[in-house]
Amino acid sequence: MSKTTAGRFFEDYRIGQIITHAVPRTVSGGERALYHALYPARTALYSSDEFARDCGLAQSPVDDLIGFHIVFGKTVPDVSLNAIANLGYAEGRFLQPVYPGDSLRSHSEVIGLKQNSNGKSGVVWVRTRGENQHGATVLDYVRWVMVRKRNPDAPAPDPVVPELNAVVAPQDLIVPAGLDFTRYDFALAGEPHRWGDYEIGERIDHVDGVTVQEAEHMLATRLWQNTSKVHFDTTQRADGKLLVYGGHVISMARALSFNGLANAQMIAAINAGSHANPCFAGDTIRAWSEVLDRAETTAPGVGALRLRLVATKGAAGVLKDEGGKYHPDVLLDLDYWVLMPV
Amino acid sequence: MSKTTAGRFFEDYRIGQIITHAVPRTVSGGERALYHALYPARTALYSSDEFARDCGLAQSPVDDLIGFHIVFGKTVPDVSLNAIANLGYAEGRFLQPVYPGDSLRSHSEVIGLKQNSNGKSGVVWVRTRGENQHGATVLDYVRWVMVRKRNPDAPAPDPVVPELNAVVAPQDLIVPAGLDFTRYDFALAGEPHRWGDYEIGERIDHVDGVTVQEAEHMLATRLWQNTSKVHFDTTQRADGKLLVYGGHVISMARALSFNGLANAQMIAAINAGSHANPCFAGDTIRAWSEVLDRAETTAPGVGALRLRLVATKGAAGVLKDEGGKYHPDVLLDLDYWVLMPV
Amino acid sequence: MSKTTAGRFFEDYRIGQIITHAVPRTVSGGERALYHALYPARTALYSSDEFARDCGLAQSPVDDLIGFHIVFGKTVPDVSLNAIANLGYAEGRFLQPVYPGDSLRSHSEVIGLKQNSNGKSGVVWVRTRGENQHGATVLDYVRWVMVRKRNPDAPAPDPVVPELNAVVAPQDLIVPAGLDFTRYDFALAGEPHRWGDYEIGERIDHVDGVTVQEAEHMLATRLWQNTSKVHFDTTQRADGKLLVYGGHVISMARALSFNGLANAQMIAAINAGSHANPCFAGDTIRAWSEVLDRAETTAPGVGALRLRLVATKGAAGVLKDEGGKYHPDVLLDLDYWVLMPV
Repeated sequence: MSKTTAGRFFEDYRIGQIITHAVPRTVSGGERALYHALYPARTALYSSDEFARDCGLAQSPVDDLIGFHIVFGKTVPDVSLNAIANLGYAEGRFLQPVYPGDSLRSHSEVIGLKQNSNGKSGVVWVRTRGENQHGATVLDYVRWVMVRKRNPDAPAPDPVVPELNAVVAPQDLIVPAGLDFTRYDFALAGEPHRWGDYEIGERIDHVDGVTVQEAEHMLATRLWQNTSKVHFDTTQRADGKLLVYGGHVISMARALSFNGLANAQMIAAINAGSHANPCFAGDTIRAWSEVLDRAETTAPGVGALRLRLVATKGAAGVLKDEGGKYHPDVLLDLDYWVLMPV
Repeated sequence: MSKTTAGRFFEDYRIGQIITHAVPRTVSGGERALYHALYPARTALYSSDEFARDCGLAQSPVDDLIGFHIVFGKTVPDVSLNAIANLGYAEGRFLQPVYPGDSLRSHSEVIGLKQNSNGKSGVVWVRTRGENQHGATVLDYVRWVMVRKRNPDAPAPDPVVPELNAVVAPQDLIVPAGLDFTRYDFALAGEPHRWGDYEIGERIDHVDGVTVQEAEHMLATRLWQNTSKVHFDTTQRADGKLLVYGGHVISMARALSFNGLANAQMIAAINAGSHANPCFAGDTIRAWSEVLDRAETTAPGVGALRLRLVATKGAAGVLKDEGGKYHPDVLLDLDYWVLMPV
Repeated sequence: MSKTTAGRFFEDYRIGQIITHAVPRTVSGGERALYHALYPARTALYSSDEFARDCGLAQSPVDDLIGFHIVFGKTVPDVSLNAIANLGYAEGRFLQPVYPGDSLRSHSEVIGLKQNSNGKSGVVWVRTRGENQHGATVLDYVRWVMVRKRNPDAPAPDPVVPELNAVVAPQDLIVPAGLDFTRYDFALAGEPHRWGDYEIGERIDHVDGVTVQEAEHMLATRLWQNTSKVHFDTTQRADGKLLVYGGHVISMARALSFNGLANAQMIAAINAGSHANPCFAGDTIRAWSEVLDRAETTAPGVGALRLRLVATKGAAGVLKDEGGKYHPDVLLDLDYWVLMPV
């Protein structure tokens, strides 16, 4: 028997199947420092223990997206090693901050399967949960990917397409226990704009750009133990290019959005996300945001803002063409909820 | 109102103005490890807890320049986002070591303003202080930069040019509490040369060179939350090149100076500094030092050495031409005090 | 007297000489995180404190090769700064795991000397020991290198060629105190294959490849305070290329071997190793393993497997030609013992 694995193919998934993802991971100040080296991340709550304590937390957690990337990375060998495309995200919720010292593991449940009409591939929906060492869920989300069939003649499963919420409802947002923005220091955070200052429909161009370097996206992707070959092995594509991990674009855009959204401290939910076009080294990533909705929370001084975060590789102001197709310069279209001081 | 900021222009500064810089930062072993990955740093006091304890400190602090870069990085959005040039440093003092777990913040006072004769820009002098979580100043320094005017027609302020000391006087050097080099282990430190072995006027060629990589200077600069666009965005210059952060050159040269100055353990002061020419990826940085002065301290076994540290991108032995202009291969001319075992 | 050192030459070594290597080093979660960013390392014992505790250890140690690289790096200024070639390793044993917070130092004893027939260089054998802050040896190994003579006319020493064991005998392998694989979680570790599932002579192709980036091997090599010029300074070779540190190839190949050897948790010994051909940025490293031997240990649930780990830069399946010369695509041929669940 071969000792190595080529990953699962479409016909290897069953509805209701639970997949335990391997390689639990303990995070430390090392992951935090690398995150700051890889992205221009400046939200104060994730930068300073003192600032986090003044917001009611025990210490500064690691960036929410560190938790996301680690949980996601573990799923790659089981879910997307033979994926043709990462199609979308839904119902992502951040339930608990991740602190240095926490150990994360994750598992996924197959909740949808639909073979493509070409018979060569199909779409797999999984709900993934990341847990800490206490067994508490730190985040969960649904992702769907297009996966190759090993054998094109394998029979198609009965199609099951899960009904997913287009948006995480405000009342389902979880505010971390203790979070309190009533003593929030706007000067230290970097901007004076409160939750109440943002209008639905308002659009913010985040000004700055970062040119992606090959070594940087590889370091980032490897850090999350993501094993997808296309990010590391130049012999995988005819053009010899490495595809940049979509999560690298998410983190870069989120960090760039500091300029204009410095007080959008914590990510509470990911409603939807599309990796609209591939990103390669040499692309200069820019970002803009649009305010989609606002909601109150029961936590002291904490409001929720629903944002569209768009990453582009040019100055693309146009998101989609008339036919609804993304502009070729759009890299990412992310719909998410953040927590801000009111 | 726009939510984003384009940074301050020359006419936005007033003498006496205090600017609180945003985004406090907690450091950990992660920053230390990255520093060792980014620079060939080998001073034993910053590498080993055991060695540091044998020198009277509680544990190994992070490199003095980590503190400097973090404090400096915070000032960029407020001081140098629209800077044309970083003109100089003076009166820099390192007052307390920074340890893993410390949280740093910083603020600056505007102490000088002088509009240029062209009317389009001016020079701004600021004194910046970095503080830890106990409110103690860990370092302070004066920096002056040439900043664009937003409106060339804005009136010139009354010129105020601060009087700055050319050198931090030996009696103003602060030796960290407890520092004691009487049991100093020269074999573990790497070289036998004591403070008394260095002669004023002596010059040391540090032998080694490091070729700058794009990804490396970007990681370094981002790690200190320095947001200056020219280091990250290849669309900022007509030639598509990224300018290397001057502090990257300082750290590289200081680390290279280990070979010949292994016992120059702690930086006590920065007297002056010029970024003589720009540095770009592909340049191979070399360094040489000249002993400028020596002074005793009251701490047991601890002497102070004043050094000129010159970084070059070629084999430049010549510092300046007859007209006093830096040789085009000179990147850095730094005048600083270090603490060494006597 | 010159303050800098050009390193030792062949005639500077004496049989029995003990060299204390400089710059002790404290490791933290930072080094661990960087290791995960630099290599696709996924062995669970080195990734998760929880997993390590379930295996009887106090917490997750840092990768065995972090210890090796740090101890090795310290020897470079004293042993291989003027080396023409790193010829081999033998009798390497890992005696104690290295944990975050440990401080490492090392020293070497010269155990062999043999001048080459050309009279311009010679081979130096050293036995190097790495110790932690408690004075306990964490690993030791023999390495031999070809070193230039400073003066070709210097007399040749009496040749001493140490007798070295071709393999560390199974009874000499040290299992870390407390290690217990009886409650080992194969699902979390990533593969179901036990020690008993591997047959002597079995060969495993590890499937994945990683394209080496200049910035990455430089960060890695610098992190271990390895000062060899050829890894950092493009002016050292006529072709302007940087030579990749051989240890970078070892770590990359070992990490790639996860796919097929996920349960080969701990390295117990290095029997032999050859850096068969140089590696440069742009090479895509792949790896295959061959099972050379199996042995039982007295620790509960713990078996030892002797493996050949071969790194290649192409798809080289052939190790050597008929004349016993390594195929030009072979980068590394390493013979080592690992500890696995039985």
